[in-house]
Amino acid sequence: MSETADPGIHVFDAAVALTALGDGRVRGRTTEPYENMVGPFGGITAATMLRAIEVHPDRLGDPLALTVNFAAPISYGEFEVGARPVRTNRNSQHWTLELSQEGTTTTTGTAVFGHHRDSWADAEAVMPDVPPPDRIAPSGMLTVRWTGSYDMRFVEGAVPGPDDGPTDSSVTTLWVRDDPARPLDFTALVALCDCFFPRSFLRLGRFMAAGTISMTVHVHATPDELAAQGTDHVLAQARASRFSRGYADQTAEIWGRDGTLLATTHQLVYFNDQWRPDGRR
Amino acid sequence: MSETADPGIHVFDAAVALTALGDGRVRGRTTEPYENMVGPFGGITAATMLRAIEVHPDRLGDPLALTVNFAAPISYGEFEVGARPVRTNRNSQHWTLELSQEGTTTTTGTAVFGHHRDSWADAEAVMPDVPPPDRIAPSGMLTVRWTGSYDMRFVEGAVPGPDDGPTDSSVTTLWVRDDPARPLDFTALVALCDCFFPRSFLRLGRFMAAGTISMTVHVHATPDELAAQGTDHVLAQARASRFSRGYADQTAEIWGRDGTLLATTHQLVYFNDQWRPDGRR
Repeated sequence: MSETADPGIHVFDAAVALTALGDGRVRGRTTEPYENMVGPFGGITAATMLRAIEVHPDRLGDPLALTVNFAAPISYGEFEVGARPVRTNRNSQHWTLELSQEGTTTTTGTAVFGHHRDSWADAEAVMPDVPPPDRIAPSGMLTVRWTGSYDMRFVEGAVPGPDDGPTDSSVTTLWVRDDPARPLDFTALVALCDCFFPRSFLRLGRFMAAGTISMTVHVHATPDELAAQGTDHVLAQARASRFSRGYADQTAEIWGRDGTLLATTHQLVYFNDQWRPDGRR
Repeated sequence: MSETADPGIHVFDAAVALTALGDGRVRGRTTEPYENMVGPFGGITAATMLRAIEVHPDRLGDPLALTVNFAAPISYGEFEVGARPVRTNRNSQHWTLELSQEGTTTTTGTAVFGHHRDSWADAEAVMPDVPPPDRIAPSGMLTVRWTGSYDMRFVEGAVPGPDDGPTDSSVTTLWVRDDPARPLDFTALVALCDCFFPRSFLRLGRFMAAGTISMTVHVHATPDELAAQGTDHVLAQARASRFSRGYADQTAEIWGRDGTLLATTHQLVYFNDQWRPDGRR
């Protein structure tokens, strides 16, 4: 990056910063702290697309649902996001999203925003009973750059090391927060929904070509619930249901330390276990 | 409907029948066997949008992921679907979808299609151990018309009756197939993903205003696996993680009778438990 980062701005806020171009279009640019193997971390892309709605003058309410489809690699540098409010109802608003570079669409999406209202409430899902984050050593996840922008403390299912073999379970559970610490908001929550590495790495005990094709986030948290998290770690747990013919799903929950279910998130992921780092297939 | 249905065409095929208008646009019309409380059954809408891709001349591969957002009610009668292949890669293809009536968008969506290839495979999710469908009496689900187009046999969590009260679990498990029986395909599978009634009905033991806002389907089944199901029942199981401030999620699996996980599907649902059928709030 040729820019000099403003030391007063958190790396996350710098990464999702957008400049209005008019007509619902905004311009952003990839930043080095969220670089992945090829192009930026998918979570920061999803967060940036959500942000394009949050800064839109016609936005109504809070994020409820977001789907982002990773259609093509994003090159490092500038991009544009088009956010269009397709339908605005009394209590909800439907958006279509498109991220493009030099006129080529790399990422598509849809989102639903809406108002919350008083209702009966109950949580059936129960937060896993795990040791608190201060009892677990932080660890880097992969050699990729974006993991350095998070404080990650693995309870189970950490990234396989060179001496690890296949496992029977695709479950990963970790405490995670932005690093440096930053108050949680909807944008950061969406990025955290993609904080896992591919489940096929864990099951097969090794790296391979793999990546998210489509990611959906259902937001349960209200603004008050998010604000109550402050800069604390959240607990993130992911698992796969099935691996077959080059694809797998991933279902995950993000919990506040107080036991509040903040978001549930679901991915379709491709993997190629025939691929080897040495080029042999 | 003023049309006379062709007796040789299954009601499902009649419901998802589309006429090409050119430029990736197709025209369909709602049919009486899939009518819901207000407008058509959401599952048939999602299936019809998938069908618009399946009949598109540029389509590559099989359905992998679909998200459909129910932005506005659909009126009974004609509609148009625009399906646009935004990006075609070697092994995958990304689509945007829009259903409209008289120029107004009622439904948005995105889809990913792609090729399957040989890979390591494993299923972690295990099909629930339940009695076979022929040991369970079929039952109508609601008084709405579309449930008559399905054979439903509830294992647990059936629609609450007038004497049922609140329950502690949002789990519904049922055997379900098209009625009349019809060989399973991707289009029918997508419709089946929406075969549940709102989880808030079950938890509170009564009806209320409620509806799906956004629905995502991740397809695990290959064409061969679907063909192997024939016209048999599939097992469908749904649950919610959290109900709060007017919204709930719903996560579900669709299993072949042979234990194959065919699809996982996730919804965001609004509910208004203050609403009463007598108009009092």
